[in-house]
Amino acid sequence: MAYLNENYLKLQAGYLFPEIARRVREFCEKNPDAAKKLIRCGIGDVTEPLPQAAIDAMKHAADELGHRETFHGYGPEQGYEFLRSAIAQHDFRDRKIDIADDEIFVSDGSKCDCGFILDILGDQNKVAVPDPVYPVYVDTNVMAGHTGAPRKDGSYEGIVYLPCTAENNFVPEPPGGGEHVDLIYLCFPNNPTGAVAKREQLEAWIDYARQHDALILFDAAYEAYISDPKIPHSIYELDGAHEHAVEFRSFSKIGGFTGVRCGFTVMPKTVLARTDSGKKMPLHPLWHRRWSTKSNSVSYPVQRAAEALYSAEGRKQCRALIDHYMGNAKILGKACEEMGLKVYGAENAPYVWVQTPKGLTSWQMFDRMLNEIKVVITPGAGFGAQGEGYFRVSAFNSRENAEEVARRLKTL
Amino acid sequence: MAYLNENYLKLQAGYLFPEIARRVREFCEKNPDAAKKLIRCGIGDVTEPLPQAAIDAMKHAADELGHRETFHGYGPEQGYEFLRSAIAQHDFRDRKIDIADDEIFVSDGSKCDCGFILDILGDQNKVAVPDPVYPVYVDTNVMAGHTGAPRKDGSYEGIVYLPCTAENNFVPEPPGGGEHVDLIYLCFPNNPTGAVAKREQLEAWIDYARQHDALILFDAAYEAYISDPKIPHSIYELDGAHEHAVEFRSFSKIGGFTGVRCGFTVMPKTVLARTDSGKKMPLHPLWHRRWSTKSNSVSYPVQRAAEALYSAEGRKQCRALIDHYMGNAKILGKACEEMGLKVYGAENAPYVWVQTPKGLTSWQMFDRMLNEIKVVITPGAGFGAQGEGYFRVSAFNSRENAEEVARRLKTL
Repeated sequence: MAYLNENYLKLQAGYLFPEIARRVREFCEKNPDAAKKLIRCGIGDVTEPLPQAAIDAMKHAADELGHRETFHGYGPEQGYEFLRSAIAQHDFRDRKIDIADDEIFVSDGSKCDCGFILDILGDQNKVAVPDPVYPVYVDTNVMAGHTGAPRKDGSYEGIVYLPCTAENNFVPEPPGGGEHVDLIYLCFPNNPTGAVAKREQLEAWIDYARQHDALILFDAAYEAYISDPKIPHSIYELDGAHEHAVEFRSFSKIGGFTGVRCGFTVMPKTVLARTDSGKKMPLHPLWHRRWSTKSNSVSYPVQRAAEALYSAEGRKQCRALIDHYMGNAKILGKACEEMGLKVYGAENAPYVWVQTPKGLTSWQMFDRMLNEIKVVITPGAGFGAQGEGYFRVSAFNSRENAEEVARRLKTL
Repeated sequence: MAYLNENYLKLQAGYLFPEIARRVREFCEKNPDAAKKLIRCGIGDVTEPLPQAAIDAMKHAADELGHRETFHGYGPEQGYEFLRSAIAQHDFRDRKIDIADDEIFVSDGSKCDCGFILDILGDQNKVAVPDPVYPVYVDTNVMAGHTGAPRKDGSYEGIVYLPCTAENNFVPEPPGGGEHVDLIYLCFPNNPTGAVAKREQLEAWIDYARQHDALILFDAAYEAYISDPKIPHSIYELDGAHEHAVEFRSFSKIGGFTGVRCGFTVMPKTVLARTDSGKKMPLHPLWHRRWSTKSNSVSYPVQRAAEALYSAEGRKQCRALIDHYMGNAKILGKACEEMGLKVYGAENAPYVWVQTPKGLTSWQMFDRMLNEIKVVITPGAGFGAQGEGYFRVSAFNSRENAEEVARRLKTL
């Protein structure tokens, strides 16, 4: 009988969001009336209409496919030149960051890329992740066999966890005492805590990466939410990052693309990795080959829609979306503060990270908010052991709902 | 320094189609005038307009995203119920094949699925592939470390190759002499040979799978091209397949979706695999979890476009596309025969598989056709050692081009 990948059997309970969905479904079945009033601030999913520029571009592209003269079949597996070039120009070169068009790899989302990147990396790498953390970084490493068994608190043996606490403002420090790791996942603005990393904090990480010849996997899916001009948007704003970092980006939260699906990876040609025998080679050709062999890139109309986000109209529409969600974040953050709770995030990120009232675990807080005020949040413990004692409120909602949640919080 | 996946270094020269593209590019640069006359029958990429039903559905879905009431963010990671249900009903239950909606997993193409499936399978599996073969089956196994070093003829140690020759009509027999394999890739109608498997031939494979408790990975991307009513369209038409087979399907060649990107995997809940210690478990929950953790499914407008292919209009338009390409296949097959060459395929598949003239290797034939008649074909050797001595002509083209290729072949 064919063998299965036993690493999957180490995975805990189910990915966080399906577990939340299960509890919500159960609640709705038991309380059909209350269910009608439910407001979801759990999963970080956008709610507002797609920018018109993207819709128009997608429809135009769909029409192109209706004529043999403008039909598009298989595209380049790494993405169309028009999109790679728009990305490299607007997101990087216009900001004085040196990134070539062919260092951009278009994908169907950065969640996917975070998993795919392990395809080209060796199983010997020692992996470090922040705690709390976006579960995908950990779970994809579990699936790939890069961890040992799970512990009772949901963490896995073999992974180095980097505590993100109120004390370090949820920006982890590099491992101390000379501890060596090969791969480091960082995400700023952070999901779930909403924290951002200052330039000096990222510099410390680049220094660590230099000393240990480590590779930083930098998730910048929320960069467009940064309002503080001193906060870097890209890891490549730092010297040395072109040799030591791969960056993941997404149109999901910038352009409302969670259902349209498009993102990209920045893989500079200067990022090297090693064989077991010590030979150093760039990762770029491996990543290129991964896409050639395992994908046919992203839907043509979707790539055209993503391109349209860089037009003058598209940029204005994206800006309006971001301002909308950040307006919600401020309302929700303020409401939690007025409850007397300690609030983090919500300034350069669409997430409000809140300390639970004394004595309540994060899942207890989840259940209480679901039952008492019909609001779905995400329990911090779902993101890791250090998330216990916190919950995340997503600002992705209508203004009306954000204001209603703020009102209901006062009744809790 | 981070370790890379050294298995990638075993991969030969570059995936077949990029290599063809390179030679064609070189030719065009050297012969700019001749380049204008070039006709591409190499890569199996569709050329005719997308069915209008799909375009209309995609545009309607794009418009839905423009209103918050009909906006769609993250969809179910395994695909929308509307599409899973349409597939299971029309492609299977309407044909008296018992497949449940939740045994359908929507993806962005069967090329991708053929690689992804290895995520949930163990590295201990002994793998068998036909020869010649669609390179993705082999290359994804190389990347996953399931093979040894490459040999001079392009094959890899550790893989069991199943010869497909004129003698067996390009339908391989199960390994003889009690040889055991765990995973078997089969593709019918076949890419590249255009061969189809009769019911008895598939039965022999199911018998083998039963005896050896093996798993068949059945690629049915071209099933819609079958015209002979006696040929099975799905492996699940055979008794025992629900326990021993996973099937891959695609809208690429049926609905002209090579640039739109949508396909699916059928994973029956009755397919089991084993742990190292011998515990048997269904693969379905692992596959489900793979999608939950590593993907956010396919673009909503793309899923709506795929659904529209099952409408009355959509089916008619798909039928017309298939009839068009099969018309080309007949013209091209006949032209090759009239050259005195031995021709296979082209009856239940959009590929013409042709023996090269005596004394010519398949790459020599490729170069000759490129230089002398400006026609791009695919050299059989690119698909495996047994492909040497053959070339593939793709029928995916306009009628005008197919007729012009037929004319040029006469001058060769």
